[in-house]
Amino acid sequence: MKTEKVKVEISARHLHLSQTDLEKLFGAGYVLKKLKDLSQEGEFAAEETVTLVGPKRKLENLRVVGPVRPATQIEIAYTDAFFLGIDAPLRLSGNIAGSAGAKIIGPVGEIDLAEGVIVAKRHLHINQKEADELGIKNDNLAKVKVDGERGLIFDNVVVRIKPTFHTSVHIDTDEANACGCGKVCSFGELILE
Amino acid sequence: MKTEKVKVEISARHLHLSQTDLEKLFGAGYVLKKLKDLSQEGEFAAEETVTLVGPKRKLENLRVVGPVRPATQIEIAYTDAFFLGIDAPLRLSGNIAGSAGAKIIGPVGEIDLAEGVIVAKRHLHINQKEADELGIKNDNLAKVKVDGERGLIFDNVVVRIKPTFHTSVHIDTDEANACGCGKVCSFGELILE
Repeated sequence: MKTEKVKVEISARHLHLSQTDLEKLFGAGYVLKKLKDLSQEGEFAAEETVTLVGPKRKLENLRVVGPVRPATQIEIAYTDAFFLGIDAPLRLSGNIAGSAGAKIIGPVGEIDLAEGVIVAKRHLHINQKEADELGIKNDNLAKVKVDGERGLIFDNVVVRIKPTFHTSVHIDTDEANACGCGKVCSFGELILE
Repeated sequence: MKTEKVKVEISARHLHLSQTDLEKLFGAGYVLKKLKDLSQEGEFAAEETVTLVGPKRKLENLRVVGPVRPATQIEIAYTDAFFLGIDAPLRLSGNIAGSAGAKIIGPVGEIDLAEGVIVAKRHLHINQKEADELGIKNDNLAKVKVDGERGLIFDNVVVRIKPTFHTSVHIDTDEANACGCGKVCSFGELILE
């Protein structure tokens, strides 16, 4: 068994928009405004937010993450899913076929999204060189141990390799709260067997 | 290492009231009405709910759990704590000295609670006979493994022994969502080393 210190980052609920959906919500020819860069290259929190409406309740101020993508995708925690009444499945980012729908309201228009709402599977971002050094491949499952009073070992952390990735584990807010790193993000131990 | 199948139950946010506080909120001589029995002997979800108010937001319909106790205690998840703006510490039930305060609003009156708001530490309820069989003592820390797509191993599960306890692990909603047992509660594997 090999272990390696790894950064653990928390993904709060957010959405990615297609250019078509961005224009429906914010107007023709609309371009996202960058609020701040995120840890993975090119990704940014946009100034724009929307309202997400489920069968039970709505969530306001849901942050858009840019740049635009081929398909609109909304990533929420199970806590949000129960609150909204949306039966969002656990999926890897990008795998939205048959996932849950929702209504999205923007300042100019609204969308009845047929699919695209998911709870994101926890995953490890890593580039090929570092993955090779650790002897792991894309889609491998790793374990990540987080210490502390609420310490735990996450199983089934999916390895995602891209040339631009900085090495970090992404968990959602439920997972962050469950391991007590909800306030300050932290480091964990990547366990490879 | 010894393992044992164990029931895992989810504690949603709730509060316990002292008789004094119950009367402030619901009126002189008030008696809680039982809605349904909970898994631990004598404990019940009451018909009564209150509104919990923090510096940022409020949560309505917070369920009272009976019977009344010597001191009022409010158990919320970190997700709730951030939502409300309450800096609730991670504590074992009963250990509320210096914990967070909040305002509680009932149908008759309200209370400015100085302390009593906690995030509950995950714990194992067990009776002495079963604890003896497993070779564990009160305050020992155990591990609990939950399988599935969001499988994980909870560390630092505090052993609580009482004669009336039915054996079960109690986790909060953040922890339940993090291990994917948010909808249907489940079984785990108690790991004793």
